[in-house]
Amino acid sequence: MAKSSSKKEKMGNTGNVYFFGGGEADGDAGMKNLLGGKGANLHEMTKIGISVPAGFTISTEVCNYYYKNNQKYPDGLENEVKEKLQKVEKVMNKKFGDKNNPLLVSVRSGARASMPGMMDTVLNIGLNDDSLETLIAETGDVRFVYDCYRRLIQMYGDVVLGVPKTEFDKLDASKFSREALIVEYKKIIKEHTKKDFPQDPFDQLWGAVGAVFESWNSERAKTYRELNKIPSEWGTAVNVQSMVFGNMGDTSGTGVAFTRHPATGENVFFGEWLPNAQGEDVVAGIRTPYPINIAQNSKEKANSLEQKMPESYKELIKIRSNLEKHYKDMQDIEFTIEKGKLWMLQTRNAKRTPVAAVKVAVDMVKEKMISKEEAIMRLSPSDIDLMLHPMLDHTAKLEVLAVGLPASPGAVSGEVVFTPEEAVALKAKGRPSILVRFETSPEDIAGMASAEGVLTQRGGMTSHAAVVARGMGKACIVGCETISINYDKNEFTAGKNTIKAGEIITIDGGSGKVIRGEAPRVRASLKGEFGEFLEYADGIRRLGIRTNADNPESAKVAREFKAEGIGLCRTEHMFFGKDRIKAVREMILADSEVHRRKALDKLLPMQKEDFIGIFKEMAGFPVIIRTLDPPLHEFLPHKALQIKELSEEMGITEDKLRDKISSLSELNPMLGHRGCRLGISYPEITEMQARAVFEAACEVKLKGIEVIPEIMIPVVSEAREFLNQREIVDRVAKEVMAKYGITIKYMVGTMIEIPRAALTAEKIADKADFFSFGTNDLTQTTFGFSRDDVGKILPDYIAKGILKNDPFQQLDVIGVGELVRMGAERGRKANPKLEVGICGEHGGDPHSIEFCHKVGLNYVSCSPYRVPIARLAAAQAVLKEKGGESYGTA
Amino acid sequence: MAKSSSKKEKMGNTGNVYFFGGGEADGDAGMKNLLGGKGANLHEMTKIGISVPAGFTISTEVCNYYYKNNQKYPDGLENEVKEKLQKVEKVMNKKFGDKNNPLLVSVRSGARASMPGMMDTVLNIGLNDDSLETLIAETGDVRFVYDCYRRLIQMYGDVVLGVPKTEFDKLDASKFSREALIVEYKKIIKEHTKKDFPQDPFDQLWGAVGAVFESWNSERAKTYRELNKIPSEWGTAVNVQSMVFGNMGDTSGTGVAFTRHPATGENVFFGEWLPNAQGEDVVAGIRTPYPINIAQNSKEKANSLEQKMPESYKELIKIRSNLEKHYKDMQDIEFTIEKGKLWMLQTRNAKRTPVAAVKVAVDMVKEKMISKEEAIMRLSPSDIDLMLHPMLDHTAKLEVLAVGLPASPGAVSGEVVFTPEEAVALKAKGRPSILVRFETSPEDIAGMASAEGVLTQRGGMTSHAAVVARGMGKACIVGCETISINYDKNEFTAGKNTIKAGEIITIDGGSGKVIRGEAPRVRASLKGEFGEFLEYADGIRRLGIRTNADNPESAKVAREFKAEGIGLCRTEHMFFGKDRIKAVREMILADSEVHRRKALDKLLPMQKEDFIGIFKEMAGFPVIIRTLDPPLHEFLPHKALQIKELSEEMGITEDKLRDKISSLSELNPMLGHRGCRLGISYPEITEMQARAVFEAACEVKLKGIEVIPEIMIPVVSEAREFLNQREIVDRVAKEVMAKYGITIKYMVGTMIEIPRAALTAEKIADKADFFSFGTNDLTQTTFGFSRDDVGKILPDYIAKGILKNDPFQQLDVIGVGELVRMGAERGRKANPKLEVGICGEHGGDPHSIEFCHKVGLNYVSCSPYRVPIARLAAAQAVLKEKGGESYGTA
Repeated sequence: MAKSSSKKEKMGNTGNVYFFGGGEADGDAGMKNLLGGKGANLHEMTKIGISVPAGFTISTEVCNYYYKNNQKYPDGLENEVKEKLQKVEKVMNKKFGDKNNPLLVSVRSGARASMPGMMDTVLNIGLNDDSLETLIAETGDVRFVYDCYRRLIQMYGDVVLGVPKTEFDKLDASKFSREALIVEYKKIIKEHTKKDFPQDPFDQLWGAVGAVFESWNSERAKTYRELNKIPSEWGTAVNVQSMVFGNMGDTSGTGVAFTRHPATGENVFFGEWLPNAQGEDVVAGIRTPYPINIAQNSKEKANSLEQKMPESYKELIKIRSNLEKHYKDMQDIEFTIEKGKLWMLQTRNAKRTPVAAVKVAVDMVKEKMISKEEAIMRLSPSDIDLMLHPMLDHTAKLEVLAVGLPASPGAVSGEVVFTPEEAVALKAKGRPSILVRFETSPEDIAGMASAEGVLTQRGGMTSHAAVVARGMGKACIVGCETISINYDKNEFTAGKNTIKAGEIITIDGGSGKVIRGEAPRVRASLKGEFGEFLEYADGIRRLGIRTNADNPESAKVAREFKAEGIGLCRTEHMFFGKDRIKAVREMILADSEVHRRKALDKLLPMQKEDFIGIFKEMAGFPVIIRTLDPPLHEFLPHKALQIKELSEEMGITEDKLRDKISSLSELNPMLGHRGCRLGISYPEITEMQARAVFEAACEVKLKGIEVIPEIMIPVVSEAREFLNQREIVDRVAKEVMAKYGITIKYMVGTMIEIPRAALTAEKIADKADFFSFGTNDLTQTTFGFSRDDVGKILPDYIAKGILKNDPFQQLDVIGVGELVRMGAERGRKANPKLEVGICGEHGGDPHSIEFCHKVGLNYVSCSPYRVPIARLAAAQAVLKEKGGESYGTA
Repeated sequence: MAKSSSKKEKMGNTGNVYFFGGGEADGDAGMKNLLGGKGANLHEMTKIGISVPAGFTISTEVCNYYYKNNQKYPDGLENEVKEKLQKVEKVMNKKFGDKNNPLLVSVRSGARASMPGMMDTVLNIGLNDDSLETLIAETGDVRFVYDCYRRLIQMYGDVVLGVPKTEFDKLDASKFSREALIVEYKKIIKEHTKKDFPQDPFDQLWGAVGAVFESWNSERAKTYRELNKIPSEWGTAVNVQSMVFGNMGDTSGTGVAFTRHPATGENVFFGEWLPNAQGEDVVAGIRTPYPINIAQNSKEKANSLEQKMPESYKELIKIRSNLEKHYKDMQDIEFTIEKGKLWMLQTRNAKRTPVAAVKVAVDMVKEKMISKEEAIMRLSPSDIDLMLHPMLDHTAKLEVLAVGLPASPGAVSGEVVFTPEEAVALKAKGRPSILVRFETSPEDIAGMASAEGVLTQRGGMTSHAAVVARGMGKACIVGCETISINYDKNEFTAGKNTIKAGEIITIDGGSGKVIRGEAPRVRASLKGEFGEFLEYADGIRRLGIRTNADNPESAKVAREFKAEGIGLCRTEHMFFGKDRIKAVREMILADSEVHRRKALDKLLPMQKEDFIGIFKEMAGFPVIIRTLDPPLHEFLPHKALQIKELSEEMGITEDKLRDKISSLSELNPMLGHRGCRLGISYPEITEMQARAVFEAACEVKLKGIEVIPEIMIPVVSEAREFLNQREIVDRVAKEVMAKYGITIKYMVGTMIEIPRAALTAEKIADKADFFSFGTNDLTQTTFGFSRDDVGKILPDYIAKGILKNDPFQQLDVIGVGELVRMGAERGRKANPKLEVGICGEHGGDPHSIEFCHKVGLNYVSCSPYRVPIARLAAAQAVLKEKGGESYGTA
């Protein structure tokens, strides 16, 4: 598609009104900013020889002038409109306002982007009591002409004069003759406006034009612009176009069509039409339309356009092909056939499902219509996201109970459970469940893994529940504050509804909807064109794409999605298994290094097994393993019963256990004794973990599988912390390699997740092989936001415009991003070979990926189910940098 | 004192051995790095004509050579030593190793700084069986000569040969004749070393020199260096000096003296001496020495040096004056009188109490001996701190129960109480108490204010208890982890001791000591020279000094200490008063804006009264008032009984109250709903506070008192947050000024305490009049340390050398400081008039103040009792920048 350029826009016409018709046009498709999307395409179609009813476009600049100058038009506009109208009259061989040969026109708004909330169309402008008679005489179709007049008065009344539509609808038309109905309609106008319906065609025209401009600042339009970040300076254009009529009898008709199938993307012509009808009749669904061709398998084949008007259909087929070749994209077209003559009323890039978008893009590459680069820009990463998860069937009727934050996509159904234990128990019985919690903690992991999906009342997009669920590829809704959980009563309420444990609900993690009962779902296929499409992306992107995976299963999924290694393997998630948590607790409760080492010795073989599994799945790709990160109290129980059980199991008094738990509790655990701070307090933990990694690596390598371990030290704020831990890792690596008699190439690096680490990156990089930006925590400390608590603040901030986005979802470029930029730059200054990546949740967010590309990171790492999204976003980042047009503004 | 310079040090002597004696010297006082402190002063004294027994110094470079070259001496050292020894022999007219006219020498270590753990002196080297007889013949004093020989063998055995001193001590000397004792001593040497005591004087000399160098790397010396951050490359020098004898009968003697009084600083000559004795006899305390002069009011006036040896005393008086004039500082001297001739053995800058230091410095300015700038560099800020608080009398015997972190200085005694209520109750009865808590919270404020001091088991140097106590000028020890509090039993244990409520303890917030019983205390005077001294500082410093004060009482104290305004007035501290907390709770529990406003209306007049009081105290000086900062749950009770009471008081159900409290609770309150986030959620709170400020300001101004209010918005991380709050403040200011019909000059600024605020300072400064760095919180978020929890981590980090200092006490220059530097720079770029200060605890820390000076802040703000310290530190920062010598390295 031609690119817009203000220079170009000024060429060909120096005024404010742009004519099109009879094969000539003042504008073209590149002039969307000036003529609006609809207008620009009308000019373009005219130019390339397609029959378009003649007309003209009043530019968006007039709209801006109008609002800057106290709702007045620029001087000379009236003359210009008259001039262009004369050209239209010439082409259409009719005269606007003429009693004997009247030209009727439509008036439509047309902004740069499609804008719900703008004025509806007004048709048949120019018709009045006088021309009514002429038209009847001319067409011999009384019904048709009265129908046109009736429509004009109603539309004009509704849209221009603000007479509620219901006023017209409540008349029982069948009780009136045609003539009497017109009289009644005019009465309604008079009653509401204290004026007669205007008989002067120019009054009608200017009334409609003014209404278009007024509608630009209607409340609905303003709200829409705010939500979609559309500047009010864009303004709207006005399209005035000759009427053609699909309701002039059986040789007339009207229809809409897609040049390919909008749901599947198949290269078939797909559409609907109605004989003897005007456009709204198809759209409004008053009459059931017929298929456009025989290929659309339908009972109404016989009524298809292909059968009924084969000539027009053939012409349409030709136009379909021309438009696709011209616009290089699938089109959504509107046409009208007036007494056997085909007129095109609209063409635009067609909306389509993600599946269709992929197929169309890949097919068009194969058809040599577009390049791979162009194909890549045709999909938004969120489309890819939708394709990877089962989706709600939105055609179904749903009882939405509440809407929370859409934390991890997928639509799943199951019985409501309120404890992880119940989720596990139901899973064992083969019954799907939805785990509903206030918020989740590491103790809930087994329950989360067993449930189909997770719903929490509190927490933000990067709360524990959200992060873990995304890592598991589980549907999840968080921060659903409109539900109220009562654990004691085993129920939650949502408004007036009370949902008890055991009742079935469906959650849609893509939209945040909580639905009563089992909602119908659909799932897209991941095969075929989808894989090809993502390979195009791989050929374009510079960023590496790794995954965050903590177990062989996730690693396998990520490899299927073509992840190029693991960017973050959280070792603590491995600690919650039933056989392990006991040893972990023994380690925590140990009162001496000797006892701690004994417990660690039990954990060693288990951790090693995990790593062996992961290394095998990731054969030949790097695996970044993070040493223990969370505060130790997360591994201890906090409920009375569990404490009692544990004290019996461990053979220590409940009091002592409580003392230990209380001594480990912290006022701000996020800023507490965690990450490398643990490894510094208890070097033997780091030692055990390093030993497990290197023993696993040696054993895998001895089986002939290439293995690249990279050890990552978390929560570093000071170079000496890193060095302290690196020395342990290096020492253990040496010992283990000597024991196995082989050499493993490995790296030791750090997570940059504390502002001070980014500020002092030079000192840290001097000792480190790689940096991985942990932007979840970095966002917390940079903003001073606790992600577990921020749910109270963020919605208000976004509503008040204080923040534009949730910084835990989309990397905050000027704050957190500044630290990333600074950290990468300072780090590489000290160590030019430094490998720099990102492993926060932002690693799977397209805008953030674009930023990572711009600041020159080596890779991004994200949850397995976001790997395809990241592949696409990384490719798009390259193309955007080169000036490629984005899906967002297309 | 002359400054050291390596260039200068090389002049005059190109070798490794530096001679002094007979009025000539190779070195001078500026050559401390090369000759050590003691050596350099011996050279200097010689040079200015004071009688010093001749000798030479082997330089510190030899020590370094020795360790770099496998414990070998540089080539030619032996010859050099011989050469210089010959010069000594010439001056002293004796010959080393000569049987007939033997020269005896002492060997002493002498590093750049005084170094405990280094080798003790060896005296009388050169004496052997042969020269013994000659010496007896020459002096006719058998007792003396045998005494010398005995001392040599014992010292040499102990210090050089490593024979335990106790081996000699356990001989009962009275059982042996002089001759027999020597034989016994030699036997001990032989037994332990399997070798005879060396008879060759040169063997003795080199043995002692080697022992000095070896002692540089003794375990004790190494530990001392580590603790005091002395690099091992400094090395030690060796001083070899002719012996003179104070034990040659009644015309001989020895003594030590201070040129002024070391405790009071009075300009009086003060010292002690012993006739017929060697130096160690005075120091070791074996014999009780006599006063040096009559002025020292003592029973032993008659035995004073002034009475006994008036000539020598007169000479000493002259030397005293010369040395002070020469060194421009109070000296600590050692002298020996050998048969009526006075020899000086040492001079150095004298240690003194802080009180003495101030008096000496101010007196010397008045005596025109030093400049005000020099005077200012004579005291360390911590000396000033000590002077401002009652101090433990360290001469008393104390039973120390435990040692915690010294959070706020002062030594105070009182009954142990475990609840704030008890502290308040005891205060009402006039009984002093020490509040002992796990940790404190805002609810404890009244108790803290009523107690003499606060002791907490947990928390770091900037925990709630520490900060509030310093603000109140109350003694406080925090993080005293060796005590274990049991609230239920109303007692705490410390090791084997159990202290019950009601028992008296003393806490010393300057040293962190917890002492059983009421320990005796002393307090320095704040009048006279002290005030003058600080005025010198005011004449030098560039930084403004403000104070952190939340009430008129603190403001008054700070003004007495000459604070130039308030840098931080925390409005929430005002909310805890008994009459106020109810209204605050009403506000929090309000379920609509209308109810909230009703509660706020009750608070308005109270806040206004506070501000009126503060504005009056700070007449003419700026007052920065911070809007509400802490999370609201801090104002609500958390204990069952209190919740019950409050629910009755407020007339709401306990359940509803619990729900509210739980809905306000946060996982990481430090990163939660606080600061401007509250003001954005509840604009009416900011509005009320602004109204209180401006109404107070107008009313005070109408009384003719100048008032400069500055409103500070806390916890800003984004420019739009600030703007949101500023708009409220500006609007209210306008309203209030219109109501009173006067104009108040005011500013609105922000606290930079979140990394993102510093990173985006340009955007914020564009809207703000001032920045105040809240480095407490900024340190928390920059490091990811919670100051309430960091007590578990910091001691270990400092012990392991990962951090050099507690960053909550001393500003972390490369991390937090980088953000301060960046924030100030970026802020001023956008707004060159931006006023930039600091109001964290660091505002009272001298090292941090130096940093603030360097990065060009406008002022620092600290607690009232640290204002004098800050005045001094700010002046010293100026002088250090100009290259002034610091108290730290003097």
